Amino acid sequence: MVYPKKHPGGPGILLKYAGKDASAAYEPIHPPDAIQQNLVPSQCLGPLAEISGVQEMSTEVIERTKDEIRVAQAMKERPPLSRILNLADMEKVAKSVLPHSAQAFYFAGTDDEVSLRENRRAFDRFFFHARVMRAVRKCDPSTKILGYDSALPLFVSGAAQASLGHPLGELNITRGCGKSNIIQMVCGFASVSRAEIAAAALPSQTLFLQLYRTRNEEATVNLIQEAERLGYKAIFLTVDAVVVGNRERDVRSIWDLEKEEGKNRYYEEGDGEEEINLLGKSSFANRNDGLDADMSWELTIPWLRSVTKLPIILKGIQCVQDAVLAAEMKVDGILLSNHGGRQLEYAMPPLEVLFQLRQRRPDVFDGLEVYIDGELLECFSNINFQDIIRRRYTARNRFAFHRATAVGLGRPFLFALSAYGEAGVAKIVSILQREIVTSMQLLGAASLRDLTPKLVERVDWEPVKREYKL
Amino acid sequence: MVYPKKHPGGPGILLKYAGKDASAAYEPIHPPDAIQQNLVPSQCLGPLAEISGVQEMSTEVIERTKDEIRVAQAMKERPPLSRILNLADMEKVAKSVLPHSAQAFYFAGTDDEVSLRENRRAFDRFFFHARVMRAVRKCDPSTKILGYDSALPLFVSGAAQASLGHPLGELNITRGCGKSNIIQMVCGFASVSRAEIAAAALPSQTLFLQLYRTRNEEATVNLIQEAERLGYKAIFLTVDAVVVGNRERDVRSIWDLEKEEGKNRYYEEGDGEEEINLLGKSSFANRNDGLDADMSWELTIPWLRSVTKLPIILKGIQCVQDAVLAAEMKVDGILLSNHGGRQLEYAMPPLEVLFQLRQRRPDVFDGLEVYIDGELLECFSNINFQDIIRRRYTARNRFAFHRATAVGLGRPFLFALSAYGEAGVAKIVSILQREIVTSMQLLGAASLRDLTPKLVERVDWEPVKREYKL
Amino acid sequence: MVYPKKHPGGPGILLKYAGKDASAAYEPIHPPDAIQQNLVPSQCLGPLAEISGVQEMSTEVIERTKDEIRVAQAMKERPPLSRILNLADMEKVAKSVLPHSAQAFYFAGTDDEVSLRENRRAFDRFFFHARVMRAVRKCDPSTKILGYDSALPLFVSGAAQASLGHPLGELNITRGCGKSNIIQMVCGFASVSRAEIAAAALPSQTLFLQLYRTRNEEATVNLIQEAERLGYKAIFLTVDAVVVGNRERDVRSIWDLEKEEGKNRYYEEGDGEEEINLLGKSSFANRNDGLDADMSWELTIPWLRSVTKLPIILKGIQCVQDAVLAAEMKVDGILLSNHGGRQLEYAMPPLEVLFQLRQRRPDVFDGLEVYIDGELLECFSNINFQDIIRRRYTARNRFAFHRATAVGLGRPFLFALSAYGEAGVAKIVSILQREIVTSMQLLGAASLRDLTPKLVERVDWEPVKREYKL
Amino acid sequence: MVYPKKHPGGPGILLKYAGKDASAAYEPIHPPDAIQQNLVPSQCLGPLAEISGVQEMSTEVIERTKDEIRVAQAMKERPPLSRILNLADMEKVAKSVLPHSAQAFYFAGTDDEVSLRENRRAFDRFFFHARVMRAVRKCDPSTKILGYDSALPLFVSGAAQASLGHPLGELNITRGCGKSNIIQMVCGFASVSRAEIAAAALPSQTLFLQLYRTRNEEATVNLIQEAERLGYKAIFLTVDAVVVGNRERDVRSIWDLEKEEGKNRYYEEGDGEEEINLLGKSSFANRNDGLDADMSWELTIPWLRSVTKLPIILKGIQCVQDAVLAAEMKVDGILLSNHGGRQLEYAMPPLEVLFQLRQRRPDVFDGLEVYIDGELLECFSNINFQDIIRRRYTARNRFAFHRATAVGLGRPFLFALSAYGEAGVAKIVSILQREIVTSMQLLGAASLRDLTPKLVERVDWEPVKREYKL
Repeated sequence: MVYPKKHPGGPGILLKYAGKDASAAYEPIHPPDAIQQNLVPSQCLGPLAEISGVQEMSTEVIERTKDEIRVAQAMKERPPLSRILNLADMEKVAKSVLPHSAQAFYFAGTDDEVSLRENRRAFDRFFFHARVMRAVRKCDPSTKILGYDSALPLFVSGAAQASLGHPLGELNITRGCGKSNIIQMVCGFASVSRAEIAAAALPSQTLFLQLYRTRNEEATVNLIQEAERLGYKAIFLTVDAVVVGNRERDVRSIWDLEKEEGKNRYYEEGDGEEEINLLGKSSFANRNDGLDADMSWELTIPWLRSVTKLPIILKGIQCVQDAVLAAEMKVDGILLSNHGGRQLEYAMPPLEVLFQLRQRRPDVFDGLEVYIDGELLECFSNINFQDIIRRRYTARNRFAFHRATAVGLGRPFLFALSAYGEAGVAKIVSILQREIVTSMQLLGAASLRDLTPKLVERVDWEPVKREYKL
Repeated sequence: MVYPKKHPGGPGILLKYAGKDASAAYEPIHPPDAIQQNLVPSQCLGPLAEISGVQEMSTEVIERTKDEIRVAQAMKERPPLSRILNLADMEKVAKSVLPHSAQAFYFAGTDDEVSLRENRRAFDRFFFHARVMRAVRKCDPSTKILGYDSALPLFVSGAAQASLGHPLGELNITRGCGKSNIIQMVCGFASVSRAEIAAAALPSQTLFLQLYRTRNEEATVNLIQEAERLGYKAIFLTVDAVVVGNRERDVRSIWDLEKEEGKNRYYEEGDGEEEINLLGKSSFANRNDGLDADMSWELTIPWLRSVTKLPIILKGIQCVQDAVLAAEMKVDGILLSNHGGRQLEYAMPPLEVLFQLRQRRPDVFDGLEVYIDGELLECFSNINFQDIIRRRYTARNRFAFHRATAVGLGRPFLFALSAYGEAGVAKIVSILQREIVTSMQLLGAASLRDLTPKLVERVDWEPVKREYKL
Repeated sequence: MVYPKKHPGGPGILLKYAGKDASAAYEPIHPPDAIQQNLVPSQCLGPLAEISGVQEMSTEVIERTKDEIRVAQAMKERPPLSRILNLADMEKVAKSVLPHSAQAFYFAGTDDEVSLRENRRAFDRFFFHARVMRAVRKCDPSTKILGYDSALPLFVSGAAQASLGHPLGELNITRGCGKSNIIQMVCGFASVSRAEIAAAALPSQTLFLQLYRTRNEEATVNLIQEAERLGYKAIFLTVDAVVVGNRERDVRSIWDLEKEEGKNRYYEEGDGEEEINLLGKSSFANRNDGLDADMSWELTIPWLRSVTKLPIILKGIQCVQDAVLAAEMKVDGILLSNHGGRQLEYAMPPLEVLFQLRQRRPDVFDGLEVYIDGELLECFSNINFQDIIRRRYTARNRFAFHRATAVGLGRPFLFALSAYGEAGVAKIVSILQREIVTSMQLLGAASLRDLTPKLVERVDWEPVKREYKL
Repeated sequence: MVYPKKHPGGPGILLKYAGKDASAAYEPIHPPDAIQQNLVPSQCLGPLAEISGVQEMSTEVIERTKDEIRVAQAMKERPPLSRILNLADMEKVAKSVLPHSAQAFYFAGTDDEVSLRENRRAFDRFFFHARVMRAVRKCDPSTKILGYDSALPLFVSGAAQASLGHPLGELNITRGCGKSNIIQMVCGFASVSRAEIAAAALPSQTLFLQLYRTRNEEATVNLIQEAERLGYKAIFLTVDAVVVGNRERDVRSIWDLEKEEGKNRYYEEGDGEEEINLLGKSSFANRNDGLDADMSWELTIPWLRSVTKLPIILKGIQCVQDAVLAAEMKVDGILLSNHGGRQLEYAMPPLEVLFQLRQRRPDVFDGLEVYIDGELLECFSNINFQDIIRRRYTARNRFAFHRATAVGLGRPFLFALSAYGEAGVAKIVSILQREIVTSMQLLGAASLRDLTPKLVERVDWEPVKREYKL
C-alpha cells in the first residue's frame, strides 16, 4: 500500500464530504483502480447504494452556480472546429468551457508566475536567418524519439488530471495520438489508469511513463513493473518536483467561486493560523506529500537502473551543470523543463538552458537525447488577457536548431480535449503539422536535418509585446 | 495554359458562386486578360447574359452590410488631401475606407504578425549623428536604380490586388509614378494586366517586373518574354514565397463579417475536419498552389539567365549568407525583404540584415545593388490601435547609410490609391520628397553621397513606444 | 535637551493646533517619554484638563471624513488571515485599511519614486540555475546575525512611526519577533520608546538599535548609553539620510484629503512663496532638521567607537567604494540600502551594488557582515495598481547567492501590523518561512551554505511586467 | 531691411487677415520694433484708426470658442503656487491654461516626436553611486558660465514666443533671472525686442544672445552690433536649425480647434495639392524661410569672429565629431542640443552625446565650455498622459558628472511664465535650487567640483516606465 497511514489529500477534504456522496469530487482525480491499489480490503466498507441517507441527499436538486451556468453557455457557443486556426484559438475555447477550478489547475504557475511567462517569452528572443532557393516542395518533419517513429518532432508530455476537462480524460489523447503517430508520455497523476491507457492504444503505438518517485520505494517499483508489462517504452523520472510549487491560482480558485456567488468571508477577531493547514495548500499539493525529496545522483540513478531495463530520461533538468551530470551518469535522455513554470520561481527558461548547453557543452548532445518543454500558451491576467497569448508552434520547429530531439507539449492537448474531445486532439496535431511544414519550407529546410544552429540568432532587442488576434 | 487541370483558387470558390453572377468577386483579383491567357476556347461557354436565371438573381436588391455602410460613410468623411501630412495619416484614411476583407489582405502578416511588427521596430534602433555647418541649401535626393533615373531613392514595390482598394487598380500608381519620376515594380499578382500598365506609362517611364516562378515553366517564360516586349526593364524574382505564409487575419476576415452581421456559427457534434480544406486557407493562398517550391541556386539562376537579358534581382533575401551567394551568382541586385512580414514568422528584419551585411560583408555591395523593404506602417490591434502606427519615411532616408541603393515601398501606394485615387499617389510622393529633403538637410547632407554609415549608430536602448498623433 | 531653540517639527504645526487639543496628531509621532527627554521643567506648563476652552472643543462632534469612512469599511471587509498567501496580499489589505496620510508616509519614495521602483525591479534580473537530485527533505533556513540566532536569514529593519498603522505600534513587532526568533532593529523614529520595546521583548530576544546622529552630540551619546543599558546588541548608524529626501507623496497627502472633501484651494493674485516653508516640506522632514550632515569617515567612526563597545553597522552604503572604506575602517557590518528609495533619486539599487561588490571586491565579505535591503512591494499608481505589486521573498532567498548575511525588511511588518495587529506579524514570518524553505528545496539547497553564487545568473533580458493575482 | 521682397510669414497669413484688424495675431509674434526694423517708410500706410470699416469689425462681439472657455476656467482653478512642488507640476498647470495653439507651439517636437522623448528618456539610463560620510551641511551649487556668476549650474536657454503664454513675454523671465542670479539667453525669435529686455535687466545681470544667421548678412551684423551695444555678453549661434523641422503638432493645431468647434472639413473631388503650400507648413516655419542653410566651418566661424569680439558658442552640436571640430575652430563653447527634439527625428540625445564625448574625447572639455540641453518634461499623448511626464531637475544635477558646465533650460521658464507670470519664474528657480542642493548632499557633494564622473554609471537595463503623481 502506498499511503497506509493517512489520506494523501489531507484530512480536510474528508471532513468536507463527510456523510455526503463525494463521487463528483473523487472521480476526476483518482484513477478507477485507486481503491484496489491503495486500500486493504478491511478499509473498504461496502457499496454506497446501501446507505440510504446519502442516496437521498444525492438526489437533492442542486442549484447551478454562476460558474456552471457560464460553462454550459460557453459549450453551446464554441466556434466550429474548422475555425480553430492555431493553438491559441484552441486554448481560448478551452478556457471558456473549463470550470474555474480546472482552469486554475491547468493554467497555474508558481508564485507570481514569472517562470511561466518567461518560459514563453524566451522564444521571442530567437530569430531566423531564413535561406532561399532550396528545394523544399517535399518536406518531411518526421523523426525518431528513443528509436520510436514520430510523425513530428514532438510528443505529448505528462500533464495531470485530464478528466477535469473531459470525462474520458487521457484516453482521448491516447486515441488521437494513435491515429496521428505521436508518442504520449503518460502522466504520473493521470486520471485514467495506466492499464486503461495501454488498452486504448494501437498495437504499434508508443507510450512513455512519467514517474514520480515517492518515499514508498516498493510501490514505485510495482508501478514501473506494471508499466513494463503494459508495454510502456521509457521512464521519464520527474526531478523538478520534489516538493510541490506554490501555485496560488490553484489555492485561490475555491475562494474565487465563493466571491462570485456573493459568499464573501471576512476576518473575525481571533481568526488565526489554524485554517492555513487545511486551505493554504491546494488539494493537489496535499496529495503529493509522499514525494521523495531525498533523491540523489549517487543513489537514485543506480537504483532505477537496477529495477528496469527501459530507457531512463530525467524530466526537469534546469541548468548546464546538471545536464553534464546526467550525461556522465549515462541516462538516455533529459527533458529541459522547469515543470511548465509550476515549481521554482525565477527558474531559467528551458530555451535559454538549451541555448547555453549548445554554446558551452555541445558534447552533451552526443551522449543522450535532449528534449525541451514547450511553452504554456496563456496565463490568466486580470489586466490584459489578449496580450499574453501566443502560439506554440514556435517551440516546435525551432528547438531543432539547438539539436534538441523533440519538444514535449502538455497543456495544449488538455485544452484540445476539454474543448472538443478526441476531435480536438486530432485537430491540434493537424495544426502543428501544417505550421511546422510551412515554417520549414520558408526556412529552406526539407527535413529536420536541415535545421542547423546557424539558422537561428539570439537577438539583443526586447521582443515586441504581442496581441491575440482571434 | 498555366493551370490546365484545376482552378488555381481551389474548388471551394467555384462551389460558392455556382449558379450565380461571380463578377464582383472575380474582377478585383483577375486581370482582364486572365481568360484569354489561361483558358482554351472550349472552356469558354459563352456570354453570361444568355443565362436568364443568373441575370434575375443579379438584379435582386442586396441589403447593404454593416461593413458597406461603414465604408460609404468613411468615404464621405475623408479629410481634405491637404491635411494628410505623413504616410500614417494616409494609412489611417485608407483603413477607414477599405472594406474589411481588403484591409485584411493588405494589412495581414504571417501568424501572430511578429515579423511584421519587428520589421518596423528595427528602424527605431538606429539613431543619427547629425552634422552641422554644411552647405545644404541645394539638396538633391535623386539617384539611379539599375541605371534608370529616380527622383528619390525609392521605388514602388510589388504589392498585390490594388483593385481591392480602387477600381482602376495599379493604373493609378503607374500614372502617379510617371509624373513623379518614380519607378514601379509591377506585382506578379496585379489586378491589371502588364500590358495595360505598360500602356498607361509615359514613354520615358521605367517599369520593373515582379516574377513568381510557377511549376509551369513554359508559362513563366511566356510571361518574361511578354514583359520584355512591353518594355519592362528588370526582373525581380520572388524567392521568399515558395509557399504562402499563414495569414490568419486574411483567413478570418469572412468570419469577422459574419459575426458583425450577427450570423455566428457554432460547433455541432460531428463538426470535424472536412471544412478546413475549403476555408482554412485564404483564397489568395489557394490561388498560389502552383508556385515552384523547388527553385535552387544551381538551376534557377542559370535558367533565368538563359531566357532573358534583363537584369535579375532576387526579391526576398533574408540573411548575409544568401546575399553572399547572390553576389557569387552575379545577379544584378538583391532586395532584402521578408515579404513585408507576410511569410516566415520570426524572420530577421531587413534593416538588421542590411546592418549585418554592412558589418560583415561590405564587399557584397560592390558587386550588386542592394535594396531594402520599407516597413508596414500599421497593423490592426484589438488593444491599442494608436500605438503601432508610425511613419514610413524613416525607411527611406536612412537606408543609404548602409549603402542600400533604394527602398521598395508597397502598401503606402495601395493605401494612397484606396483613399484618394491618383491624387493620393501623387501626394505620397510629395510627402516623401519633403521628408527626405528636410532630413538630409538637418543631417548635413546635400546629396545621397553624403549619407555615409558613420552618420548612423545602432543604439543599445529599447526604443520608446510611439503614439500616433493625427 | 536635544532641540533647545525651536520645535523640531517647525512652527507651522504649532500654529495649526494653537488653542486646540493636539493629542491625536501628537501621539502617533512622539514616543511617550518625548516630553521628559526634550523639555526642561519650566517648559511644561501644566495638565491640559485645566484649560476649559480646549476641553469643550475636544468634545465637539467631528464629522467623519470620506477617508475615515473608507478605512472603517475596509476594516470590516478584511479577508480572513488564512487567505493571506503572500506579502503582496498583506500589503493590499494594509493599503485598504491605512488612513491616506499613513499610506503616504509608508509608501512614499523620493521625487518620482524611480529609486523605489528600481530597487524592486532589480530582483527581476536575477534568475536561477536550479540543481536537482539533491537531498533536501530536511531543509534548514536558520542562520546567525552578528552571532545572534535567527530563524531565517532576515531581520526587521528600522521603519518609522508604526503607530500610524496600529495603536500599539512597534510593540507588536517585538512580540511577534520574540515568538518567531527574528531579530528586530528598532527605528530611530519609533513611536514607542526604546525602553517600552525592551520591556516587551523576551529575555532571549535580540534587539538592534537604529541610530540617527543629530547635531546634538550629547543627546546622541545618551541615547546609545540608554540602548546599551536596555540590552540592545548592535548600533546601525544611518548614513544615507543626512538630509531628508523629497517625498512628495507625503507632502501632498494633506492636499489629497482636502480635494477628496471638495475643499479645493485655488491660486489668488499675490499668492506667493511664503507658504512653502510651512507646507512644502512634510512634517516628518521638518522634525529631522537636526540631523548631522557633517559626518565623516575620519571623525564619526572613531567617535562612535569611543562611546560604545557594541558592534557598529553602517546602514545605507550605496556603492562599492564606500563598502571598501567601511571594511578598511573595520566596522562590523554594512547594510546595502538607499533607504528604501526614500532619499536619493536614481540611486543604484542595493541588489546591483551587492552584485558589483561580489564581482569586484569579494574580499570585503571576509571582513564584515553584509546585509541588504528588501524591496518595497508596492507603490501607489494612478495608472495600474496591479502591475507593480510583487512578492518580497525573492529578496530573501536570493540574497545569499552573493553572500549577504541577511535581508532587512521594514515595510512588510508595518503592513502586517496595520492590517491584523500582532497576528499579522506572526503570519508574515510564517509565509516567509514557507516560501524560503520551498524555494531552497527546489533549488537543491538543504541549508544556507548550499546557496552559492553559481546558482544565480544576471540575465540580459528585460523582466516581464508582472501582474498581481490576488 | 531683412525681408525686402515678401512677407516672411508667407502670403497666406496676409490673405487671412485682409481687411481685418490683425493685431491679436500680430502682436505675440512680432517684437514692437518689427515695423521700424523691417519696413521702409513708404510701406507704412498710416494708422489703423483711420480705416473705419476695420474699426467697426473689431467691435463685433466675438463668441468665445471652447478652447477659450477651457482656458478661462483653468486660469481660475490654478492651484496655489505653494503647491507647485516640481517642474512637472508647473508644466501641468501651464498646459491647462495655455491656448491650444500655444501648447502646440511649445510642446511640438519634430515628426513623431521620437527625438523629443528620447532626449528625456536618456536621463533614465544614468544612475548614481552615492557617497556617504562626507561633510555636506554647507553645500554650494553656484558656478561661473563664460566667467559670469550663476547661482546654479543652469541658464535660461532661448525659447521662442513667450508672449503666446503671457502678455509680458520674456520680460518676466528677465526680471525673475535678475533676482535669482540666473543668466538668460535671449531667443532669436523673442516676442519682446532685445532692447526692451536689456532695459528690464539689472545692471549686474548677464544676458546672452541667441543668433539665427539669415541669408541677409547685413541684417545679421546689425543685430550683433545692437546686442553688443545693449551689453549682451555672448553669441550663441544656432547651427541645428538651417531649415525648420516638421512639427506636425503645430501645423495641426488650427484643425484641432476647427474639429473642437464642430467645423469639420471633408474631402471633395478635385481637392488637391494647391492648399499644402499655404497650410502644410506652420506659420512659424513660414517666417523662417530666410535662414542661411549654407553656413560652413570654413566661412561662417571666421566671419563671425571678424564682426564681434564676444565669445562665440555653437548651439546645436549633435555628435562627437562636430564637438571636436568646434574645439579645433577655437570657439568658446558648445551647447549639445538637438533643438529640444524639434528638428531632426532620431537625433542622438544630447546626454548620450555628452557621455560619448566624455568617453572618447575628454580633451575637448579642456578647450571650451560644454553645455547641454535640458529635457522637455512632457509631450501630449492621446493614450496616456500620465506616463510621460517627468521632472527636469535630473538634467541639472547630473550634467556635471560629465563635466558639462551648465544646463540650458527653455520650456520650463515659458511654462512658469504662462502659468503664474513673474512669480512662476521665481518659483522655478527656487524649486531647482532645493532639488539640486538636496541631491548634491545625498550624493556626498558639497560643491560642483565634487561631482565627478565616477559618481555616475550608465546602466544596461531599460528604465522603469514612470507615472506622474501630482
